[in-house]
Amino acid sequence: MEIIKKYETFFNDYLNNNCIEKEPNNLYEPINYILSIGGKRLRPLVILMSADVLGDKLKDALPAALSVEIFHNFTLMHDDIMDNAPLRRGQTTVHEKWDVNTAILSGDTMLVQSYKCLEKYSNTPQLYTLLSSVLSKTAIEVCEGQQYDIDFVNQNTITIEDYIKMITLKTAVLVACAFKMGAIIAGVTDKTATNLYEFGKNLGIAFQLQDDYLDTFGDSTLVGKQTGGDIIENKKTYLYIKSLQELEKDKSEELFELFQTTPKNPEAKIERAKQLFEESGSVVSLKQTIDKYTKLALQNLKELDIAKEKKAPFEKFAQELMFRNK
Amino acid sequence: MEIIKKYETFFNDYLNNNCIEKEPNNLYEPINYILSIGGKRLRPLVILMSADVLGDKLKDALPAALSVEIFHNFTLMHDDIMDNAPLRRGQTTVHEKWDVNTAILSGDTMLVQSYKCLEKYSNTPQLYTLLSSVLSKTAIEVCEGQQYDIDFVNQNTITIEDYIKMITLKTAVLVACAFKMGAIIAGVTDKTATNLYEFGKNLGIAFQLQDDYLDTFGDSTLVGKQTGGDIIENKKTYLYIKSLQELEKDKSEELFELFQTTPKNPEAKIERAKQLFEESGSVVSLKQTIDKYTKLALQNLKELDIAKEKKAPFEKFAQELMFRNK
Repeated sequence: MEIIKKYETFFNDYLNNNCIEKEPNNLYEPINYILSIGGKRLRPLVILMSADVLGDKLKDALPAALSVEIFHNFTLMHDDIMDNAPLRRGQTTVHEKWDVNTAILSGDTMLVQSYKCLEKYSNTPQLYTLLSSVLSKTAIEVCEGQQYDIDFVNQNTITIEDYIKMITLKTAVLVACAFKMGAIIAGVTDKTATNLYEFGKNLGIAFQLQDDYLDTFGDSTLVGKQTGGDIIENKKTYLYIKSLQELEKDKSEELFELFQTTPKNPEAKIERAKQLFEESGSVVSLKQTIDKYTKLALQNLKELDIAKEKKAPFEKFAQELMFRNK
Repeated sequence: MEIIKKYETFFNDYLNNNCIEKEPNNLYEPINYILSIGGKRLRPLVILMSADVLGDKLKDALPAALSVEIFHNFTLMHDDIMDNAPLRRGQTTVHEKWDVNTAILSGDTMLVQSYKCLEKYSNTPQLYTLLSSVLSKTAIEVCEGQQYDIDFVNQNTITIEDYIKMITLKTAVLVACAFKMGAIIAGVTDKTATNLYEFGKNLGIAFQLQDDYLDTFGDSTLVGKQTGGDIIENKKTYLYIKSLQELEKDKSEELFELFQTTPKNPEAKIERAKQLFEESGSVVSLKQTIDKYTKLALQNLKELDIAKEKKAPFEKFAQELMFRNK
């Protein structure tokens, strides 16, 4: 995304300069490995943008950006164990490349590191306290979100409300946290920081729903991976939950049964699930919901008590994020 | 132990009042379970004693005491996964009672909770910052210690120095952290807090070595479990490492081979290992080393710049800890 791309080199340089190379090697190597395989760096770049736009505090925001990126990668390392995932960003996951115990312990270390990064602010104890509390609140919520996601596997009646709650906790609050941390470092009022948090949260929900849409209906050449992954893994996403509710009894049962299977050649399953998603009206409903949360985010932005020209980059960010095709 | 026993009810009441009962149940139930099955509560009670004796700040120290107890139990929950341990304090471990994923995620949540507990001090941001930094430093070290311990399994040449370093990181620094946190809350000088940290560290090393001794040579009726557990699990403790070094080649090889086996009926193995430990002079050496670290701790205490009557409870604590038989 253009609007945050300009912060990328800046962040990556800081990340590389703060890479921890010490003993025991078996603890730190997996950490440097997962941090090096990239990803969109969405959250840290949001922090940098937020601090830069709101208070010209780009450089000051680097430790917080690193903190949140390390935290995010800690969640990936542990989630990959729980999901038994062989690959992450096309590379072997840590528990596969090393082993489960390594992924547990290196992940734990990263979680502590995400707090340690914030110590760069300890000369201003009030700032450290504030940022560290935001991190803790978010971290607890992310764990709760992951637990709800795990619980869904054995749960047959999930409502759309349950699903939105789960993705809010698992994904959206960390995006919100990134906006808020940048705002705090920029020194804005509590009210502005809270409103920006809400902006980030609604945008985060829209972002995750968009991800769900693209996973099933995206252009695989643009998305960069085969579409239909969520269907193959029998994931209970918006499309599945809504379709179960909306379809006639026989087709609803068909979809339910379809998601109990794991065929070796999943093409037919993917095709049929997509048909049922379309037929049920869930695809239209999903697009409307994405639209709803995007609009809520833009409304939050409108209500922000900051100069109009400072709002422009946030609006641009929202647009770029939501009108992406990958 | 008498000297800290008087704080026990006080701490347990606080723990029970701060037990988190919220959704998702699958996340919080295992946390309340592991916290409820007890243990010595050594670390939290040390914080309470330290804050009480040094600054009459017993009540103020409760959140820090809870923080460290939650942190300690987080490490147990994750260590038990890594060690594949079926029991903890005679009760089923979390990954056995629930599953590995639950133990990972509930453990992660506890690590965050240990930071969140400290937010009770956030009205004094300087205090929060200080305590939270001590927690992070300690937490990183504990993870490093656990990694060294894991590395030992596949390592054939371990020195006594390596071993002391490992137990310092894995066990002693958290005891040291407890003394220091209590001192910080009591409002003593940096120098006093640092000296008390060193006292706790040396005492923690002596404590772990004493544990090693009791595991093999303790009176099983007093220890409350069958002795020889470390030998059965082929653990590379002080006694094993030192014996490998000191024994003649043939007996050293015999001990090495003995620790490659896992007999169904381990009595003979335990007996032979104990003989070799005695014969090598390792038992005497271990006792001398325990004595050395206990004396170092008492020396730290002597050098502390506080009134003599305030030193007395710490000295009594050290004596009770070191002259225990269980």
